Amino acid sequence: MKLATIRTADTTAAVRIDGDSAVETGHSDVGALLRDPRWRQVAASASGTVHPTADLDYAPVVPRPRKIVCVGLNYRTHIQEMGRELPRYPTLFAKFPEALVGPYDDITLPAASDAVDWEAELAVVIGARVRKADLATAASGIAGYSVINDITARDWQYRSPQWLQGKTFEATAPFGPVVVTTDEVDGSAGLRLTCEVDGETVQQADTSDLVFDPATLVEYVSRILTLEPGDVLATGTPGGVGHARIPRRYLTDGQVLVTRVDGIGELRNTCCAEKTEHGGD
Amino acid sequence: MKLATIRTADTTAAVRIDGDSAVETGHSDVGALLRDPRWRQVAASASGTVHPTADLDYAPVVPRPRKIVCVGLNYRTHIQEMGRELPRYPTLFAKFPEALVGPYDDITLPAASDAVDWEAELAVVIGARVRKADLATAASGIAGYSVINDITARDWQYRSPQWLQGKTFEATAPFGPVVVTTDEVDGSAGLRLTCEVDGETVQQADTSDLVFDPATLVEYVSRILTLEPGDVLATGTPGGVGHARIPRRYLTDGQVLVTRVDGIGELRNTCCAEKTEHGGD
Repeated sequence: MKLATIRTADTTAAVRIDGDSAVETGHSDVGALLRDPRWRQVAASASGTVHPTADLDYAPVVPRPRKIVCVGLNYRTHIQEMGRELPRYPTLFAKFPEALVGPYDDITLPAASDAVDWEAELAVVIGARVRKADLATAASGIAGYSVINDITARDWQYRSPQWLQGKTFEATAPFGPVVVTTDEVDGSAGLRLTCEVDGETVQQADTSDLVFDPATLVEYVSRILTLEPGDVLATGTPGGVGHARIPRRYLTDGQVLVTRVDGIGELRNTCCAEKTEHGGD
Repeated sequence: MKLATIRTADTTAAVRIDGDSAVETGHSDVGALLRDPRWRQVAASASGTVHPTADLDYAPVVPRPRKIVCVGLNYRTHIQEMGRELPRYPTLFAKFPEALVGPYDDITLPAASDAVDWEAELAVVIGARVRKADLATAASGIAGYSVINDITARDWQYRSPQWLQGKTFEATAPFGPVVVTTDEVDGSAGLRLTCEVDGETVQQADTSDLVFDPATLVEYVSRILTLEPGDVLATGTPGGVGHARIPRRYLTDGQVLVTRVDGIGELRNTCCAEKTEHGGD
């Protein structure tokens, strides 16, 4: 199944995508759907209002995850080309839901930053409560996979030893368009990930190159705390970010960013410079 | 006003503490109360069920903040005694709500960690939507102040460059017992902060020693994203943590940790070693 959250007249709705049609499941969004322990059956059998997919206005596929756990350097090839050792433990940090935008929404380039960069990533969406899971249980706690771009204000990221402030600017990180459930796609099994800026491919990788694959990440995080349905793990980005280029490159007003994971879908977003900055810096 | 969240037979309730009595406001918790734009008047005039405070079972004062933004090294004296420069920008990182426990609950010492440490902190609780605020607006967006202990698994904190995984173990961080509203207490104005382990004072400081005071932190974070009612800022801890001692000291099973901010209240928690660790390491 492919699940999405769409914007309707005054709210949002979870839908199952059936080819050219989207069928409402009766839930306010995919997060609410996933909190139903029977979500797989409920979503599969839903027969609510039908919309042509061509007309849809997509929200972030989980609009307000309770937790977004991001992973640092996690692509083997990129780590090795940088001459680093493979890490023993994943590097984890957070993003807050305010950062999310829909898969075709504009990306805000904050006026406060001069260095907004791309980070194409495979996203894992949790579909059950997961706590101290073994690897098999962790794998079965994954609802499915989606696409996120962990847009980063590099200047703010490196203002302090902790990256959070560069990782969570409001309305910067596109997420969606769909969650493809695990019966249809395996996030560990060599999905091609790409990122394009104005048609130029700037990142490409294969998810089989992840040091810590999705189930391993879920198992690891579940040792620390309970993962809940609708929680999101952003699995890290491969080489090719703008900040590591010579000369450095950052996103500019009007550029179109396309983030794609084959077998899942693509984000297509226009970068939009924020007009004013109140509060100064 | 002093506001708290108490556990009732099968749920929680927000209360106003009037001396020896607690009066229910009609909200499920202090977070829900603060989301009412008229919360000050509503809480002041509430006249629901009354409980003797001696009988109360306190939950985390905001049980599930949407965001917990923590601040790194932020006490001037401690930074200077370490021979470091005062930072130009605050160091920000996240904690997830699963980490919270009530002000008198047991603190879980995770079986997965051998190095659980204390970090007594003044907590700021947000009472309005705050976005790109000037300093005065930021100050007025603060509902009040509380106490938090940012309990940290040092071994996990330093597994990777990012601290999150050591900062958010489930059921570790006591928070409360009350929010004291800003008309009764000024968090910048020299409140005495202390932390005791089995009666021995291990941390003491004065909140006037903060490099970035509460309003400044709110103003700063509001440049990045929208703060919402019930969001929490943990303002950082002074010197005296166990990890910086020679020899190092960590919390052990059965120890009683008391975290106090004069004018607000105290947390009193027994450390409780987790019995089993599934999922291995």
